[in-house]
Amino acid sequence: MPLMKSWVPSANTPDTPFPLNNLPYGVFCSTGSDTQPPFGPYCGVAIGNMILNITDLEHEYFQYNVDPVFDIGCWNEFMELGPDTWAEFRAKLTEMLSENSPYQPEIETYLVAQSDVEMLMPFVVQEYTDFYAGRQHAANMGAILRGSPDLPANWLHIPIGYNGRASSVVVSGTDIHRPNGQMKAPDAEMPSFGPSKRLDIELEMGAIVGTASKFGTPITVDEADAMIFGYVLLNDWSARDIQGWEYQPLGPFQGKAFGTSISPWIVTTAALEPFRTPTPPREKDLLPYLNSTVDGLYNIDLEVLMQPQGAATATSLSKTNYNRMYYSAAEQLCHHAVGGCGMNAGDLLGSGTISGPDKSEYGSLMEVSWAGREPFTLDTGETRTFIEDGDRLTLRGAAKGDGYQIGFGDCAGTILPAVKHP
Amino acid sequence: MPLMKSWVPSANTPDTPFPLNNLPYGVFCSTGSDTQPPFGPYCGVAIGNMILNITDLEHEYFQYNVDPVFDIGCWNEFMELGPDTWAEFRAKLTEMLSENSPYQPEIETYLVAQSDVEMLMPFVVQEYTDFYAGRQHAANMGAILRGSPDLPANWLHIPIGYNGRASSVVVSGTDIHRPNGQMKAPDAEMPSFGPSKRLDIELEMGAIVGTASKFGTPITVDEADAMIFGYVLLNDWSARDIQGWEYQPLGPFQGKAFGTSISPWIVTTAALEPFRTPTPPREKDLLPYLNSTVDGLYNIDLEVLMQPQGAATATSLSKTNYNRMYYSAAEQLCHHAVGGCGMNAGDLLGSGTISGPDKSEYGSLMEVSWAGREPFTLDTGETRTFIEDGDRLTLRGAAKGDGYQIGFGDCAGTILPAVKHP
Repeated sequence: MPLMKSWVPSANTPDTPFPLNNLPYGVFCSTGSDTQPPFGPYCGVAIGNMILNITDLEHEYFQYNVDPVFDIGCWNEFMELGPDTWAEFRAKLTEMLSENSPYQPEIETYLVAQSDVEMLMPFVVQEYTDFYAGRQHAANMGAILRGSPDLPANWLHIPIGYNGRASSVVVSGTDIHRPNGQMKAPDAEMPSFGPSKRLDIELEMGAIVGTASKFGTPITVDEADAMIFGYVLLNDWSARDIQGWEYQPLGPFQGKAFGTSISPWIVTTAALEPFRTPTPPREKDLLPYLNSTVDGLYNIDLEVLMQPQGAATATSLSKTNYNRMYYSAAEQLCHHAVGGCGMNAGDLLGSGTISGPDKSEYGSLMEVSWAGREPFTLDTGETRTFIEDGDRLTLRGAAKGDGYQIGFGDCAGTILPAVKHP
Repeated sequence: MPLMKSWVPSANTPDTPFPLNNLPYGVFCSTGSDTQPPFGPYCGVAIGNMILNITDLEHEYFQYNVDPVFDIGCWNEFMELGPDTWAEFRAKLTEMLSENSPYQPEIETYLVAQSDVEMLMPFVVQEYTDFYAGRQHAANMGAILRGSPDLPANWLHIPIGYNGRASSVVVSGTDIHRPNGQMKAPDAEMPSFGPSKRLDIELEMGAIVGTASKFGTPITVDEADAMIFGYVLLNDWSARDIQGWEYQPLGPFQGKAFGTSISPWIVTTAALEPFRTPTPPREKDLLPYLNSTVDGLYNIDLEVLMQPQGAATATSLSKTNYNRMYYSAAEQLCHHAVGGCGMNAGDLLGSGTISGPDKSEYGSLMEVSWAGREPFTLDTGETRTFIEDGDRLTLRGAAKGDGYQIGFGDCAGTILPAVKHP
């Protein structure tokens, strides 16, 4: 599919992340200035370097219920309307924003510049689940932590996941305090308490569940695929020292609970449709409940960048692709509900860390620095093993089409010093 | 403290779980009958065998905001008003329902019989966390699963917990389908899919967070204690075979996601205040952030009962007490927020399985039947190792005062056959 032209000029440049082919959904506000009063939160759609204010447009163009859907500054109520409404809404937006659209004069006044607003959480995270579906990442972590790249016995059969903390999910741009916590060096007799010294990122995609499943009722992978509303970039900040001491026997807890950043724009599955790609060949047959007829992954280029405090530019640490994953979000969602667990609109599923086979494709600093044993050098000449205070970490992603790209907006956060414990 | 007398006669009997000293909070409705139309959901307070309809009383007696707090059939909005309002409200209720109260004539009409209504979830579970804070349970599980009762290395330092699934929490009386899932026998080459064969309960208390903490800001144990709104009985249904195959390396997931039952009444910390009791002596000093000045446990007698389909009576399987726990809910909540994780009104914290030192005090069938190796006999003459279809499992609990008790209402659920997978 080629670039679709819009009457918004900035949407027609080859390097915009937000051409008419994309139309991602976000929430924005303005904190106000001398000349403009504060406004929002509003639901909006990105087009070029502008945002179309959907909350203000709703009354005239998008009436779904007696009560408005877009008035509370999140996309959850719209998600709950289901895939037919998602498709109608997108078709209408496409019509409105296309080159030569008769709507241009009436809706031009509903555009605001992205540079004039602040982005907020695009949806209310109902529950958050994080998976472990990158084969190379699992092998690397095995090699680092257990001395062998062999996968856990269940790994090729189960899309392994654990429940995370929804209250820790924040939008890109939110600064994160280095967490305090318990940790214990292997040779120490007793644990100690203090700021994490092995602070890391995890490069992930987040899939957003758009429609609910019923408590007690399993779903197929194909049904799960149709339930997914869209995707965001996701940085699952991780304190490796806290995690290492706490995770046996019940899994990660406080090592993962101090912040999970997502990109501000939900890129819909409709926008990503041309980029579908199958999961890699199964090394062992999956049990039949995990079978599907859909290509569940997407071809999305991904990049991790680090910028120390005061540095003029960010250093690229890693480049990989979402197609490296072994399990798709639809397979993960199917497995999540297989025992009857009810899934709801706004549930967020982290893909697991995305690492490709080459070192240049590793999606965490744990892997890039091989647990701190191999420091890496930034463009400023400084070296790093893990994150230092003031470092800004950014995830970027784009599906590359024929003369256009589908972007997510940066997923960025700066690490602040640990708070003093009371 | 002795029994406080009420003008509701059934609240003055020594065996009622709901004397004036208790005043627990629930949500109820009626499905209607030939003579009465359906009504609810309403917020209510239990007194004897009656319920005082708070939703209907709110307008005249309890105005907190411009908008009503009790109109949506859950106690979350009231929780958010904070401890001063909790105390005022309870004082007012006590005044209204006391023997010789001048309020009797006016509020008598707001009473409904418990036998005429159905109980619903008393609050919206924001997020659910389950802990592992019973020393005997941890030792038993070690002995069963790893051949040694030695505790995990971190256990005496960290109140170990993992995030559970809020969407799986249901009110007592909700039947639970036996879950399907992946499992693998130790000697099998490949995993298989099907209904769990090792279906179990876990006897727990659930602490409900009433006021929020701030993202990025830790809390002390004393602050955490003041944030807890009340307690429920909690049955963390567990599929041991699914859990056994999935839980390495990231913890329990689908083995715990098919249902978690809670009792219908939230017993407030105010009602439990006379029953506070300290945690047992620390076997190793806790790190200072876990220090506190409060006695964080409560003296609450607990019982597990099993009733096979068609049996006239239930068999008592276990009797123990909440005072057996090593960590308190306040310690767990403090640890939960120590790295900056934001806690919210409606968060539910499962205590972990409560088992005492004697076999008669074990809080799961895994322990009672020692992983199925020692079948137990019911009063009907039938034997069990784990739960069979049609079995009804009930948790009961009461703090025993001087001529009165503080009860929770039964926490019960019947296991239905597994659903056929699509």
